[in-house]
Amino acid sequence: MEISSAYIEIAVSTLRRIRERSPLILCLTNSVVQSISANVLLAAGAAPVMLCDADEIEELLGSVAGGLLVNLGTLSQEQAQTMRRAIRAANANKRPWVLDPVAVGGLSLRTDFAREILALRPTLIRGNASEILALAGFSANARGPESTCKSDAAVEAAQQLARQTGASVLVTGEIDYVTDGTQTAAFGNGHVLMTRVTGVGCSMGAFAAAALAATPDPFDATVATALIYGIAGDLAAERAQAPGSFAVALLDALYQISENDLRSRAKVLA
Amino acid sequence: MEISSAYIEIAVSTLRRIRERSPLILCLTNSVVQSISANVLLAAGAAPVMLCDADEIEELLGSVAGGLLVNLGTLSQEQAQTMRRAIRAANANKRPWVLDPVAVGGLSLRTDFAREILALRPTLIRGNASEILALAGFSANARGPESTCKSDAAVEAAQQLARQTGASVLVTGEIDYVTDGTQTAAFGNGHVLMTRVTGVGCSMGAFAAAALAATPDPFDATVATALIYGIAGDLAAERAQAPGSFAVALLDALYQISENDLRSRAKVLA
Amino acid sequence: MEISSAYIEIAVSTLRRIRERSPLILCLTNSVVQSISANVLLAAGAAPVMLCDADEIEELLGSVAGGLLVNLGTLSQEQAQTMRRAIRAANANKRPWVLDPVAVGGLSLRTDFAREILALRPTLIRGNASEILALAGFSANARGPESTCKSDAAVEAAQQLARQTGASVLVTGEIDYVTDGTQTAAFGNGHVLMTRVTGVGCSMGAFAAAALAATPDPFDATVATALIYGIAGDLAAERAQAPGSFAVALLDALYQISENDLRSRAKVLA
Repeated sequence: MEISSAYIEIAVSTLRRIRERSPLILCLTNSVVQSISANVLLAAGAAPVMLCDADEIEELLGSVAGGLLVNLGTLSQEQAQTMRRAIRAANANKRPWVLDPVAVGGLSLRTDFAREILALRPTLIRGNASEILALAGFSANARGPESTCKSDAAVEAAQQLARQTGASVLVTGEIDYVTDGTQTAAFGNGHVLMTRVTGVGCSMGAFAAAALAATPDPFDATVATALIYGIAGDLAAERAQAPGSFAVALLDALYQISENDLRSRAKVLA
Repeated sequence: MEISSAYIEIAVSTLRRIRERSPLILCLTNSVVQSISANVLLAAGAAPVMLCDADEIEELLGSVAGGLLVNLGTLSQEQAQTMRRAIRAANANKRPWVLDPVAVGGLSLRTDFAREILALRPTLIRGNASEILALAGFSANARGPESTCKSDAAVEAAQQLARQTGASVLVTGEIDYVTDGTQTAAFGNGHVLMTRVTGVGCSMGAFAAAALAATPDPFDATVATALIYGIAGDLAAERAQAPGSFAVALLDALYQISENDLRSRAKVLA
Repeated sequence: MEISSAYIEIAVSTLRRIRERSPLILCLTNSVVQSISANVLLAAGAAPVMLCDADEIEELLGSVAGGLLVNLGTLSQEQAQTMRRAIRAANANKRPWVLDPVAVGGLSLRTDFAREILALRPTLIRGNASEILALAGFSANARGPESTCKSDAAVEAAQQLARQTGASVLVTGEIDYVTDGTQTAAFGNGHVLMTRVTGVGCSMGAFAAAALAATPDPFDATVATALIYGIAGDLAAERAQAPGSFAVALLDALYQISENDLRSRAKVLA
């Protein structure tokens, strides 16, 4: 089987398992995107939980949670402390966890914290080019949650970051790159309207945690995330040409996307 | 008048009064669902207020607030302290208050807190079967905000909880049950897509507080809540087959639902 | 050129510059409306950032942030302290800042805080009639975020507030008034459905900060805000007759609104 077909079959089986098993994903995410992140997980067939209390977070990670998202978008000192405990609980219970280093590079608290928790070995890291460059220690111009450079520019940084941390790394942009430091894949699905709705990128991190709960191999789960999410974006863009209706159509597409959509629409570039 | 017609007329008059009086509902709710809860209240004709500061909360409950929602979805120790003060202020000012015991049973902080505030006598309790079973002290398997058992399984627990606390209890599920410990009603409206949009259940608790502000009898207000909200779900499901567009259609339906819709679509099962 | 055409040309050039420059707007806003505020900015062509940590806020205002929104909707003592630091950083770095005094008048913490920060000279103040009356020291009946009086009743208060503080003041309502204490303009665009979706008013404050980043003259930026936002509301109301679909259509309209829409639809009343 050629590599392209192999990636598509990984996406197909991951989507099927998310829908069958409905993994419970604990999202420690920024306050702006909690609602769309929960809706993305629900539409895809997974189940979201957001909690504040660190004791409850540890309880859930020791029982029914299938994965954890750590998104730094509205980090506070207090939330950083909660996240440290959550990550340790995830590791102790062998649950995958996703790091979304929102706006790392331009702002001190999150940049220091992101580098600190890299030592706790995230299963998967999702960011735009600026964030991945900054996290890998390359210089970059972060501009809040937006990337000021193309994803191509961060492929080498992503590979180095993957080798340093053991994580699978997803660099999102016009082209999405997936790497574990050895293998590197590239996908051309997705639409620019995804950058005009708040939380579409952050929700991809939540989806990635569900993919990891369904497909434990980190590289495979990341490939599935890039393909399923990107193709859902393509489907939504066929129905909607502006951001309000696009956000609605994206949730509908995640709910309705079929195995045939994945097989017929995947743009595997490498 | 048979019981079915009586319930429908209660729903009709409650909806009319919510729209005429636009009661101001103070929502102390989880961070994920604040926006949809506010939008549900606005669409239905009520007015939402969310506040953080306990002094301001007491001021509002001593002046223009018509009801209070206490939703435990993202409870923290600090928020629990604010909720205690809010509930006491609601009771002191004779304002109805609704308890939504999200995920009670599986997580300690909220389970202990929910049992503590039962002694402060909520006017209405809304939960899924797992939550009502756990709150009544029956064993149950909570799985975050999702129920793992059918609403039928919690009817006895709901009746006992109503007798213990004096609250009217609403168990939501494929069938919605309403009980004050003496009377028990059952309704078959609503659609499974309501479980695929975050906050639809939580927003029903906010709506219930508005219903109590319009119709002080707790059992009657709970009946009205189950009927109006369930029929709005039916109307939305006729227009939308996936969760993004369903969420939009649900808000539209709450705004547009007519007395004729209530009379022609109510599924009163008992 | 008559005054009406002058106002329209200001709106046209402001819209064009927002789309060209994509100013980064730091929103310290209430927890209910963060998502719609971010989506309004993205749809209009600007870029939102929400942060919690005061050190990061100061960093961003010292680097790439083009403007600041201070919205008091869910104020806490802790957030007030963060806002004080943010406002001082905005002033030190000569960035415009917008004050949205949500529900000032009826609740103590925010009323005291809003009066305190008036001394820090907001660039623009946006509120409904009740809020502007209360902020100017006139007596008013605030009822949460809703105004209980027409915007006409607050014109004199707005003019006095503008003269006292140096801010440009926008009173929103069926008619929107803009004043800097010397000039006063009035606009008749917008639709009543804008009051049935949570955060539409608050998001106008976020949009105003983007307008100030594009058009530094405060009166001009406020005129542009009233026209662009009101006409987007008109466009949305042509497509949607209920609040769920109206919210979607409003975001679409902000993305799609053309210079021709502004020229052909502006209702300049004075």
